[in-house]
Amino acid sequence: MCQLLGLNANTPTDLVFSFTGFAHRAEEHRDGFGIAFFEGPGVRLFVDHQSATTSPVAEMIRRYPIHSRHIIAHIRKATQGRVALENTHPFMRELWGRYWVFAHNGNLVDFQPKLHAAFRPVGDTDSERAFCWLMQEISKCHAGVPSVAHLTQTLAELVPPVARHGTFNFLLSNGEALWVHCSTKLHYIERAHPFDTAQLQDEDLTVDFAAHTTPDDRVAVVVTEPLTCNEAWTAMAPGELLVFENGRRCPLAGAGRAG
Amino acid sequence: MCQLLGLNANTPTDLVFSFTGFAHRAEEHRDGFGIAFFEGPGVRLFVDHQSATTSPVAEMIRRYPIHSRHIIAHIRKATQGRVALENTHPFMRELWGRYWVFAHNGNLVDFQPKLHAAFRPVGDTDSERAFCWLMQEISKCHAGVPSVAHLTQTLAELVPPVARHGTFNFLLSNGEALWVHCSTKLHYIERAHPFDTAQLQDEDLTVDFAAHTTPDDRVAVVVTEPLTCNEAWTAMAPGELLVFENGRRCPLAGAGRAG
Repeated sequence: MCQLLGLNANTPTDLVFSFTGFAHRAEEHRDGFGIAFFEGPGVRLFVDHQSATTSPVAEMIRRYPIHSRHIIAHIRKATQGRVALENTHPFMRELWGRYWVFAHNGNLVDFQPKLHAAFRPVGDTDSERAFCWLMQEISKCHAGVPSVAHLTQTLAELVPPVARHGTFNFLLSNGEALWVHCSTKLHYIERAHPFDTAQLQDEDLTVDFAAHTTPDDRVAVVVTEPLTCNEAWTAMAPGELLVFENGRRCPLAGAGRAG
Repeated sequence: MCQLLGLNANTPTDLVFSFTGFAHRAEEHRDGFGIAFFEGPGVRLFVDHQSATTSPVAEMIRRYPIHSRHIIAHIRKATQGRVALENTHPFMRELWGRYWVFAHNGNLVDFQPKLHAAFRPVGDTDSERAFCWLMQEISKCHAGVPSVAHLTQTLAELVPPVARHGTFNFLLSNGEALWVHCSTKLHYIERAHPFDTAQLQDEDLTVDFAAHTTPDDRVAVVVTEPLTCNEAWTAMAPGELLVFENGRRCPLAGAGRAG
């Protein structure tokens, strides 16, 4: 199984601390890694088919504090598709003049949707196929970029038929919000004032968020397994679809159970 | 004006030598840089709105020998569009399950094509607008990925109406070949056995290609201004469209003057 890491914040935030702990887990997930940072409407997408523990790209990311309000990262242990660059998450497409970024943890069995529109997989993973199908259906459901609430409702309808094919934990962002669906395992935390010190679970590393933040900052982090050992992470329920905007979970009508 | 650098080879080749010379020119082109490496159908796309002389991303690329048969790089001096990540070349889109990468040098005036299909600019440059229009028209001209010869013919028809709006030096690749159009200034070189030693024009750096190649290797490099001072670069003519495949210039019927 792969692992996912997502960040949503109300102010550009660097992921150096969380990525350090996350990359540590790549020792068991050595089939590539990827990370996408939104900067305004632009995206930096770094992918490598080397493990995040040894990749020079990952090493640069651990040292270069790229600030972003929307980040999606993935470390891969191949289940479907060869170990190759084109199969490395996150995947990115453009729709309505906006980039969309997607990463998936899980395995979809016998998911061969009809892809008749403008989104086709480049690689051969179930994950990219599911992303292309979601993009195709989103493009049919709306005439232009929908509001966060409307897109959440659309996803609540689109996701369950995919999720029935297996395990469909995913992160999706269009640079406005972070959509998260849990099939089996995802945890999240919302950090806000007063910030505290966090201790990484996998490494002997702590960070005092209070020293790096202002009272107005809000950051939500979503990850397969909790990254820190002294904070209260919330486990998502199977079938739960959440959306995070401006560093907090949105209490939207559509943000309930999606399958 | 920006500067372009492209590589097309018959075997995966690293660009460390050429990129070092190219990045040196970024002192005058400080509004961002980008570089895309095809690896099979996959693409690594690195963009940064910092100059290639100071960017940690460029520093990593100078040290990490990524091998690729199709590379497109760009250093930017903004003419249209703000200095922002979404305006940084190369641009990438997916069509027919394949990535397409494009970088432009020049300035298009009053180029506001009708973009009614699946390709919309995310940023606000004339360059990305031109790329989206080319992708839209290519998608209408063919039912699936065309052969290199057919796509060259299509581009020979599509490019002149765009080029009439100003300066349209560009590099385009879909991972199969490198298409190059010259409005004002582009130079290329084809390197093959017997390889020789090359001396960078901008830095006191030489490389003995013979030590790093086999007799079967072929590499074509395209760049705004020649990178080396002891090799014979060919200047492209205004309006010329060329295509490079397997490290050599294709003598195709369609690879003539395009405008």
